[in-house]
Amino acid sequence: MRTSIATVSLSGSLTEKLTAAARAGFDGVEIFENDLLASPLTPEEVRDRCADLGLTIDLYQPMRDVEAAPAEEFARTLRRARHKFALMRRLGADTVLVCSSVSPLAVDDDALAAGQLARLADLAQDFGIRVAYEALAWGRHVSTYDHAWRIVEAAGHPALGTCLDSFHILSRGSDPRGIERIPGEKIFFLQLADAPRLAMDVLQWSRHHRCFPGQGGFDVAGLVRHVLRAGYDGPLSLEVFNDVYRQSDAGATAVDAQRSLRLLQEQAGLTTPPAPVVPTGVAFAELVTPDAEPLAALLGALGFARTARHRGKPVDLWEQGEARILVNTTTAGRRESTRLAAVGLESPDPAGAARRAEALLAPVLPRRRAPQDVPLEAVAAPDGTELFFCATGRAALPDWRADFPAAGHRTPRGTGVRRIDHLSLTQPWHHFDEAALFHRSVLGLRAQESVDVADPYGLLRSRAVTNADGGVRIVLTVGPAPADDTAHAQHIALATDDVVAAARRFRAAGGRLLPIPANYHDDLAARYEFADGELETYRELGIFYDRDADGGVFRHCYTHTVGRVFFELVQREGGYRGYGAPNAPVRLAAQHAARGFTGG
Amino acid sequence: MRTSIATVSLSGSLTEKLTAAARAGFDGVEIFENDLLASPLTPEEVRDRCADLGLTIDLYQPMRDVEAAPAEEFARTLRRARHKFALMRRLGADTVLVCSSVSPLAVDDDALAAGQLARLADLAQDFGIRVAYEALAWGRHVSTYDHAWRIVEAAGHPALGTCLDSFHILSRGSDPRGIERIPGEKIFFLQLADAPRLAMDVLQWSRHHRCFPGQGGFDVAGLVRHVLRAGYDGPLSLEVFNDVYRQSDAGATAVDAQRSLRLLQEQAGLTTPPAPVVPTGVAFAELVTPDAEPLAALLGALGFARTARHRGKPVDLWEQGEARILVNTTTAGRRESTRLAAVGLESPDPAGAARRAEALLAPVLPRRRAPQDVPLEAVAAPDGTELFFCATGRAALPDWRADFPAAGHRTPRGTGVRRIDHLSLTQPWHHFDEAALFHRSVLGLRAQESVDVADPYGLLRSRAVTNADGGVRIVLTVGPAPADDTAHAQHIALATDDVVAAARRFRAAGGRLLPIPANYHDDLAARYEFADGELETYRELGIFYDRDADGGVFRHCYTHTVGRVFFELVQREGGYRGYGAPNAPVRLAAQHAARGFTGG
Repeated sequence: MRTSIATVSLSGSLTEKLTAAARAGFDGVEIFENDLLASPLTPEEVRDRCADLGLTIDLYQPMRDVEAAPAEEFARTLRRARHKFALMRRLGADTVLVCSSVSPLAVDDDALAAGQLARLADLAQDFGIRVAYEALAWGRHVSTYDHAWRIVEAAGHPALGTCLDSFHILSRGSDPRGIERIPGEKIFFLQLADAPRLAMDVLQWSRHHRCFPGQGGFDVAGLVRHVLRAGYDGPLSLEVFNDVYRQSDAGATAVDAQRSLRLLQEQAGLTTPPAPVVPTGVAFAELVTPDAEPLAALLGALGFARTARHRGKPVDLWEQGEARILVNTTTAGRRESTRLAAVGLESPDPAGAARRAEALLAPVLPRRRAPQDVPLEAVAAPDGTELFFCATGRAALPDWRADFPAAGHRTPRGTGVRRIDHLSLTQPWHHFDEAALFHRSVLGLRAQESVDVADPYGLLRSRAVTNADGGVRIVLTVGPAPADDTAHAQHIALATDDVVAAARRFRAAGGRLLPIPANYHDDLAARYEFADGELETYRELGIFYDRDADGGVFRHCYTHTVGRVFFELVQREGGYRGYGAPNAPVRLAAQHAARGFTGG
Repeated sequence: MRTSIATVSLSGSLTEKLTAAARAGFDGVEIFENDLLASPLTPEEVRDRCADLGLTIDLYQPMRDVEAAPAEEFARTLRRARHKFALMRRLGADTVLVCSSVSPLAVDDDALAAGQLARLADLAQDFGIRVAYEALAWGRHVSTYDHAWRIVEAAGHPALGTCLDSFHILSRGSDPRGIERIPGEKIFFLQLADAPRLAMDVLQWSRHHRCFPGQGGFDVAGLVRHVLRAGYDGPLSLEVFNDVYRQSDAGATAVDAQRSLRLLQEQAGLTTPPAPVVPTGVAFAELVTPDAEPLAALLGALGFARTARHRGKPVDLWEQGEARILVNTTTAGRRESTRLAAVGLESPDPAGAARRAEALLAPVLPRRRAPQDVPLEAVAAPDGTELFFCATGRAALPDWRADFPAAGHRTPRGTGVRRIDHLSLTQPWHHFDEAALFHRSVLGLRAQESVDVADPYGLLRSRAVTNADGGVRIVLTVGPAPADDTAHAQHIALATDDVVAAARRFRAAGGRLLPIPANYHDDLAARYEFADGELETYRELGIFYDRDADGGVFRHCYTHTVGRVFFELVQREGGYRGYGAPNAPVRLAAQHAARGFTGG
C-alpha cells in the first residue's frame, strides 16, 4: 500500500521534512497546517517541491470545530472553508480532514452534525475535494469511530467519508472489529500511531511527574490545613519522584524544595513571613553586551534616545516614554553574547521586597557599587537574572536614576513606545517549574497556565507571571533539551498605542522587521474579516495578529536579533491579556529561516 | 513546623543529598532505602553525618507488601522487618513507612490486614519504632486514605498510625476533608507532593507521546487488518505527535517511520519481505581502542588468550570458550575512548539476514576488506554499532575466523568463561524506541519490557532484545539527557558456570573487581537465607545476587572500566532470564563512587 507521513511527525522546516520523507521512501505526506503557514514557499511551490520529490499531498487539516455548531458559527466555518479549499487546490491536495468538534458551543445533535457536514461536503465537491470526518478521542459529543461513522452514514453524501486514526480508536479502548462493517470506499483515510500504554497510569504519574507543592495542579495547602485541624504536629515532608530533579544539581533542587514549603506554610497559616511586595512596573531592563554599537543602532531605530550615562560605570541609559533600557559594557566578556542580565522592578517598598525575597530563599546579591551610588536591593532569579527592587520618581524613595545624571531630561524622537510590555526570559531546562514558583512566592506575581509552543526544532514551554494590572509581565520559556539552554533568544516587548505607526517609523529609521511568510497572512484572511487595506498593511510590515475569546486584539512585530536579544513592538486592545502564542510557531520558524538576519 | 525531604527527591550520592538538604534549611530527611544500600557509609556513619548537619532521620521505608498476606509470606515479612528495625536503630530512625500492599497474593480482608499490622507494630515497639501505614493510590485492596485509617483504627495498636501522602490522596480525587476526623496523634507522618494534572489526560497523551507503530503498546497491525477487511485501499499514513521526534534529525526519524510501516505491512499480511534470519549467538564483540595495552591486561586477567591476529589489519582475536573479543587499533583516533564498535552475530544465513536488513532499511555497510578476506555482510544499528552477519565453524558457510590464522588453536588458561552472555549498548537519547524496533524488525529479536533504572544522577531506561533461547541478548540503555549520550559505559557480560571461581581466578591474575557497599549485602541478608559462608563470599568478592519469581538465580560482578567499556562476569541458574536490574542502582552508584577505579 502507499505510505504517507504527517509533517508534524518530523523535525525542521517544511522543506527539510519533505526531503526527509521522500528520502525514506514515503509516497505521500499529510501537511500540517502550521508547517505551511510557517513556510516561505507558496502553496504552488510546495506542490511543485512535492512533485519533484515524488510525493503526493494526501491530506490537509485546516478545519476545527465544524459540525453541530450554532448557525452563526457554521457560517464562519463555511467562509473559512472556502478559503482553505481554494488553498488546497493550489496545493493539489484533494482530501480535507475534519476532526469532531471540541467546541463548548457544539450541540449534541447527530442530525445537525450530519446536515452541516453534508453542506461542507457540497462546498468541497465544488473544489474537487473530499471531506474525511474523524472522531477525536476527546471530542465533545463525538469521540468514537463508530459514532463518527453513523453521522457520515446519515449524511449520505458522496464527498463525505470517515477517517480512522489508530490512536483515537485504541486509546479509548474501542473494539476495532466494528471497522469491518464500514464500507471500504467510505473510509477516506487511515492515520496510524502507536503509544505507550503507561502514559495514563497513576503509578507512572507518581513515579516520574511529582513536583514540589505549588508547582503542579493540586491544592496541597488545602490538604495540609485539614491535616493540621486533625491535630497533626509532625514534620512536613516532601516525597517527590521526579525525573528532572533526579538529574539536576541537588543544591538548587533542595533550595527550590525548601522554598515550596515556606510558601506552603504561609498559605496554610502556619507562618507569617514578610508579606510579598508586588512590583508595579518595570523600571528598566539591563542588557549586557561586549559591543554597544549594534544595540545602539537598534535602540536608535526603535526611537530610544541615549539620555544618560552612569556616573561611575560604562552603563548607558536609553529612554522612550516609560521604557528604559540600560546598556552595560562593564561586565561582559569579549566573547559573551549580548544578553538580558537584569530587570529593575518598580517596587512600592524595596526594603520590604528584599526582606520577603530573603525569607523565601532568594539569593541576595552583594551590592557592587560605589559609596555615592543609590542603594539598590537585588536578588538573583533561578536563571541568574538579577532582579533590582527600585523606585522611579517617587518622593519617599531614592530614585535609581540619581546615578544617571540628566536621566529623563531629553525627549527622544520616539516611535510611540510607552513602556516595556513584557520580558521573555529563557530558563535553564532543569528549573522551569522552580522559576514560576520563585516569581510567585518571592515577588507575589500570578502564574498563568503553561503553554506549549511548537518551534520547528522542538517543543518549547512558556508560562507568564504577571501582577494584577499587567504592569509587570514576565514570560518564562524553556527549550526542548538541556543542551539548548543558551541557544534560545530572550526578548523585550515594547508597548505602543499604534504598532503600525511604530513599525513604519522603525523602518524609516533604518530598522529591519522580521519577514513573515505570506501563507500566514493568507490564513488570517480565512480566519478574520479586516477593513480594506488592513491586512495588506500587516503583510507589508510583518505584523502578527491575534484575537482572544473576548474580542481583545493583539498586534505585534519583531526586530532582528542582537546576540541573544531581540525586541518586539506590541499593541494591546480590548483587554487582550496574552502574548500572541498562536503566532509563536510561525515567528520561531521565521527566526530560524532568517538566521543571518542580524544586520542593523 | 519541621520540614523534611525524601532523599529520592534529590540528585547524587547520599552524602551529596544530605548536604544539599541541610544547606537549604531542612530539619530532617526521609532516607530512601536504595540511597542507603548504594552508600559506602555505614548506618552509624549516616546517622553521625546527619547529626553533624543538624538533620534528623524522620522516616525509613524498607517494607513492601506487608499486610493481608498469606501466613507464609507474612512470616518472611516479619523476618525481614527484624533485620530492618535493627538497621533503623543503627540509623537512629524511629518511624517506618508501610505502604498498602500491591501484591497479587494480598487478600481483601481488613481484619487480617489490621491483625498483621498490629503484629508488625508489636515487633516495632520492641525496637522503639512506630509503624506508619499509608494507602498507595494503586494499592491492591487499600488505595484510599480513609480505608487505611479504618484498618489502623481497627488494629488499635499504640505503635501503629497512619501516614498521609498528598499525591496518593489528591491523585485519586479523594475528599481531603475527611482527614479532620482522624485523631492527630494517629497521623504519624505527612508526605507532600504536587503533580501536574495533565499527566492523566488523553489529549496530552495524544499530543506528546504518540510513537510509530511497533514502538508502543497498541495492536496497530490488528487494527489495520480490520480496516483492510472493510475494503480500504488508501494510504497508510503516520500521524505522530511526539516531543522527541520534534527535536530529532528529520532524516533519521523518517527512516524509522518508514521501517515501522514496512514491519506493519508485513504483520498485516500486505507484503512479504525476506523473512528475518534470527541470529543464534554472538560470534564476536569488537572493541576499538587507541591503546591496546589496558584492554590486553584486563582480558588477560579475565582468562582470555590472544590467539590470533587478523592477517591484514591490526586486529587481535582474544578467545576463551565460545567468547571471542576482537581488539582493533586500526580505526580509533588517538583521543577516542575505548568503545564497543561492532558485534558479530552468528547467522544461519548471512546473505538472507542482509537481504532482510536491506528490506527493513538498515544501512548496509560497505565492505572495507582486502580481496582475500572472508566476505562479511554488515549493517549499522541506529547507534552506529556495526552488526556483522557471520558463521563460526559451520561447514556450509565461510568462517569469519579464516582471516585470523591459528584462531581457535590455542587453549587459554581461562577463568571458566563459556561465552558472551549479553552486550549492553548505550543508545543515543533520541533513538531509544527506534533501536528496539530496529532489532525486532531487522534481526527478528524479541523486545522485553522497558525497565527504569535509577542512576544517582538521573533515570536510565533499559530494554533487552533477545532471541528465543537467550543465545543473543542485547540490552539497549538510554541515559537521562541528550547531553550524556557518550558518557555512559557499554559492557560485555561473560557467562560462567561458577562466578565465584571466575572472580577468584580474575583476582588472582591481578584483576580488580568493583567494590560494593556493605549495606547492599546487609540487605541481601534481610531478603534471603543463604548457606553458611555464601553471603560472606559475595561480600568479599563484590558479587551481586538476584532471584526471580520462579526461583531463577543470577550472580554477577564487575570489572573496572577501560574507556567506555567494562566487563561483567555472570552466572545464570534455574532459568533466570533477567539482567540483575534490581541491583543496577547500587552498581551504578558504586561505579560513580569508584571513578578513578580504572587501574588494571
